[in-house]
Amino acid sequence: MPTLILLRHGQSQWNLEDRFTGWVDVDLTAEGEAQARKGGELIRAAGLQVDRAYTSVLTRAIRTLWLALTAAGQVFVPETKDWRLNERHYGGLTGLNKTETAEKHGADQVRIWRRSYDTPPPPLAPGGEWDFSRDRRYAGLVLPDTESLKTTLERVEPYWTAEIAPRLAAGETVLVAAHGNSLRAIVKLIYGLSADGIMEVEIPTSNPLVIDLDAALKPLAARYLDADRAQALPKAP
Amino acid sequence: MPTLILLRHGQSQWNLEDRFTGWVDVDLTAEGEAQARKGGELIRAAGLQVDRAYTSVLTRAIRTLWLALTAAGQVFVPETKDWRLNERHYGGLTGLNKTETAEKHGADQVRIWRRSYDTPPPPLAPGGEWDFSRDRRYAGLVLPDTESLKTTLERVEPYWTAEIAPRLAAGETVLVAAHGNSLRAIVKLIYGLSADGIMEVEIPTSNPLVIDLDAALKPLAARYLDADRAQALPKAP
Repeated sequence: MPTLILLRHGQSQWNLEDRFTGWVDVDLTAEGEAQARKGGELIRAAGLQVDRAYTSVLTRAIRTLWLALTAAGQVFVPETKDWRLNERHYGGLTGLNKTETAEKHGADQVRIWRRSYDTPPPPLAPGGEWDFSRDRRYAGLVLPDTESLKTTLERVEPYWTAEIAPRLAAGETVLVAAHGNSLRAIVKLIYGLSADGIMEVEIPTSNPLVIDLDAALKPLAARYLDADRAQALPKAP
Repeated sequence: MPTLILLRHGQSQWNLEDRFTGWVDVDLTAEGEAQARKGGELIRAAGLQVDRAYTSVLTRAIRTLWLALTAAGQVFVPETKDWRLNERHYGGLTGLNKTETAEKHGADQVRIWRRSYDTPPPPLAPGGEWDFSRDRRYAGLVLPDTESLKTTLERVEPYWTAEIAPRLAAGETVLVAAHGNSLRAIVKLIYGLSADGIMEVEIPTSNPLVIDLDAALKPLAARYLDADRAQALPKAP
């Protein structure tokens, strides 16, 4: 039976500093590392055997995957890293402190940028400190300069359809270690959620969300492995 | 220019216990982890940019790769794990203490099993403690029950030719994090060494061996990144 495990990375340095991170390659804190190990221990305790793993090209997600697979005793699982599982690109907000940004642009505007489904922040200026086009991990790609959750989903979806969904359809247990918004995109795709529906979904960090799927990859049941830190489960409309 | 970096894993628990390890999935010790990080720091200090990484399906090599890539600041590099890069399979010697084995079979016989190019130890008995056919990472494969360096090379070579060599031929910098004997097999292939010649080569642990290759993947130059712990470099006959 196809089983999907979604694992959101834990605390990074910029979570501590309350800055818009997006594609900036900030590492986990020691606390974030411990959270990733805990996620892996939960996977092991649940007896889940991962067949294949996916992550983004951002260090905090990759290391979350590695620490979790290590704690789960399953480091030999094949893994693929792809930029299409990256966090949402925060455009011109990248690197800014969230409180300062609210003071500058107003709390309402910042709430729209953060919480609207389809309103991207202003684009990232090229050539600045956070110009990702100079980073060799993105060589040869046409990169976004800002993203809403909608446009994040538009680059997650083809990767999901071409790479991940076929593995699930073959009956595999697939682990995706990624970010709040790329995981939201996957949840929206699986559950067929509306734009409003997905904005209600907040996946807790480092608490593996296990979704049992039918042969057509429709969700049959879902559970968080750490029941004490569970949020509301997504529900198909 | 094609560049190959060979990284042999450092201390594992069974190195400490002086046991024949082979395919047993023994983890690194804390010392082995520190050695792997040091290897990654040397890669970073040398300014090497890895395009792609390969490792075995054994934890001590995989974690060596991960710790090295983390220390090198290059965790986003695509990586592939394959059993054909595993350590030589030690057959019926698997799990035995080396000193006790010498007492039982004689030091000369053990020296032949360890140092001969083409004499494998007796086969591993099926169904015992170390029956790897029950391990899901080998599902669907026809596995050896013992290996010499010669037969190790015979399964490394097709993987080298099909997967790794084409990446080098495309000009990439490739990191292979693996084991004493699978790395020896690669060195023999690249340098065209004889059976006697490869038995003289001992790659030190966690000291990256960097080999510059020409377009036909013939070695042009080689160096150990930690010059203080370098062994003799391989030489084409």
